[in-house]
Amino acid sequence: MKYPVNLKLFRRNAHSPSHQTLKLSMGNSNCEILDFCIPINSYFPTHNMLQKYADNLYEILKYYPSDSGDLSKIVAKVFGYDPECLLLFNGSTELITYINVFFVNNSICSEIPTFGRWVDQPQELGKRIFQFEAKEEDNYRVDPEEYANFVLKSGADIAVICNPNNPTGSLLSHSEMVNLLDRLKSIDLIIVDEAFIDFSYPDPRDIPSMAHEAMRRDNVIVVKSLGKNLGLHGVRLGYAIAPACIIKKLNTVTPKWNINGIAEAVIRDLADNFDLYESARKKQIQDRFYLEDQLKQFSHIKVFPSTTNFVYLKLPDNIDGYDFRNRMIGNHGCFIRECGNKVGSSSQYIRIAVCPKDKVDILIQALKEEL
Amino acid sequence: MKYPVNLKLFRRNAHSPSHQTLKLSMGNSNCEILDFCIPINSYFPTHNMLQKYADNLYEILKYYPSDSGDLSKIVAKVFGYDPECLLLFNGSTELITYINVFFVNNSICSEIPTFGRWVDQPQELGKRIFQFEAKEEDNYRVDPEEYANFVLKSGADIAVICNPNNPTGSLLSHSEMVNLLDRLKSIDLIIVDEAFIDFSYPDPRDIPSMAHEAMRRDNVIVVKSLGKNLGLHGVRLGYAIAPACIIKKLNTVTPKWNINGIAEAVIRDLADNFDLYESARKKQIQDRFYLEDQLKQFSHIKVFPSTTNFVYLKLPDNIDGYDFRNRMIGNHGCFIRECGNKVGSSSQYIRIAVCPKDKVDILIQALKEEL
Repeated sequence: MKYPVNLKLFRRNAHSPSHQTLKLSMGNSNCEILDFCIPINSYFPTHNMLQKYADNLYEILKYYPSDSGDLSKIVAKVFGYDPECLLLFNGSTELITYINVFFVNNSICSEIPTFGRWVDQPQELGKRIFQFEAKEEDNYRVDPEEYANFVLKSGADIAVICNPNNPTGSLLSHSEMVNLLDRLKSIDLIIVDEAFIDFSYPDPRDIPSMAHEAMRRDNVIVVKSLGKNLGLHGVRLGYAIAPACIIKKLNTVTPKWNINGIAEAVIRDLADNFDLYESARKKQIQDRFYLEDQLKQFSHIKVFPSTTNFVYLKLPDNIDGYDFRNRMIGNHGCFIRECGNKVGSSSQYIRIAVCPKDKVDILIQALKEEL
Repeated sequence: MKYPVNLKLFRRNAHSPSHQTLKLSMGNSNCEILDFCIPINSYFPTHNMLQKYADNLYEILKYYPSDSGDLSKIVAKVFGYDPECLLLFNGSTELITYINVFFVNNSICSEIPTFGRWVDQPQELGKRIFQFEAKEEDNYRVDPEEYANFVLKSGADIAVICNPNNPTGSLLSHSEMVNLLDRLKSIDLIIVDEAFIDFSYPDPRDIPSMAHEAMRRDNVIVVKSLGKNLGLHGVRLGYAIAPACIIKKLNTVTPKWNINGIAEAVIRDLADNFDLYESARKKQIQDRFYLEDQLKQFSHIKVFPSTTNFVYLKLPDNIDGYDFRNRMIGNHGCFIRECGNKVGSSSQYIRIAVCPKDKVDILIQALKEEL
């Protein structure tokens, strides 16, 4: 194998090993792994921003950060939300955990496939999950009317929808989402997980976020991921937008100092660099168009239309996904996400993160050799 | 005022503003605030370690960190604990929050004064708190026999003790603590908060930690703070040592990716730098002796014996603590902790963090002018 990755780190039906774990498994090898597993923002933060954090690292790490209430107010101001309706978390998984633990009483409805924590965690907690299967023939677009009927019939108190969906990349429009919220007015809570929505459309006015809807309803929480958008997954940063009464309830169970020093520096920097973020976001979307176009040359793989920072595809029947993932990383250093651990998906499906053109060209060459 | 700090940031009965908030309140002033509020480790991490994190900041922040289970195993190995008995948290306040939310059913016993979250949070959550008042005439040393009787008589299911106590700096010995745990075998849970215990004695064998006791009992959680010990409060890093059954329960409610990228880098670095940590820890203890000695020259303030990284003292009756704190920071740039928001203490009491000799000399000069 050209890239001496320890393939035993990939366990069937488990999450992928972290980039760091993979890298360390290669020992002193100088081979560079190209990461198509984690959908990062290639153009943000800028070199200058990172340099500033590096220069101030002593101050950033040495003292306690401000508490999450104070920092939440800053983020609310940057994005134009009511400060009473926003609360920051140590990554959106912290928020998702609290929702699963505290808000899901007995059962939850979710489309599948979806982000793993919406399915795995309620089960780990002994709660019932009603799964609405998105159809491949519809490119995994959930019909909002059908989903609403399914939720109401199930009797679940809580429903979750990822918009865009992860891993399929499908997206419901603003009006479809508003209709869905209207149809589900009678249930306790609707969660809209918008972790990847910033990469849907270049013009911010086209992005079908439910954040403003959530602030004026009484049963909606919008889950946002700042780490993903800002290209800083290692920082752990996400937030909830919800009516003030729900934010208050979340606040009572949230650690007071859950936001670390680097995250605080990024937050304080955000307003000053918002135009740079916007231009990075748009470049990232352009890169998606290139990746999609390139993938379409392989007539024997099915490329599902994407509206976000990754592309979902289906391998031909004769190719085993585990083996394919291993060959892509072992022979070419291209780390791709095989979806065998996702309920409603299988190892025949691959998620590829959007990357700049030069990396995509290497990926395409590797695909030509391995497919 | 020589140091243009915004004194309105100090609200009565509230936590101190963060170092960053204070600094920002001074605008473009070049005045440097000397921090005697937060007990940091002045000698760790080393300059080289910080430089390494700065050099690798892109990789550290760009990708998802490993999950807390994997990182917990590394920390267990470094400190020689059973990996089934250790779980990492995003700062010890994350762990404290989960204990207050999930383990405290109806009521909790705590000595006072103590770390605020053991008293404020159960109250915020509508739980009952039984307060055992430590006596000034005993230098706030809790009598373990008396405390055990108080706990058993209260009928509370859970008792907490901070060893050393924060803010008083008093410490129970190993045998006293074992006796206390023995006497409280019948209650659901005993929490031993050892956030500051590493700074008690230079020889590690003298440090009266209950970590090994916790692993072999069924009703003890030891709370540890790595951020405080390692001098990286901004990183957010703490852990629990407890029997495997309790760790398993904590694990179900803990976010899977709660440890950020910088914290992961520090953890992976720890084993290689353990001797540097040990020598930093010992230097920090030497600095405490110097601070205590210097403070004793003021015959009209009472200096309580400390066994950790800060010193607790009582101002004369004719001095108002709020005003004194404001004069110390406004006139001299010395930021000290006035304890008016701590139940069982008052604004007449001050906590001073251990700092190197040169800073202490500036503090002492300021005290001479303001007392």
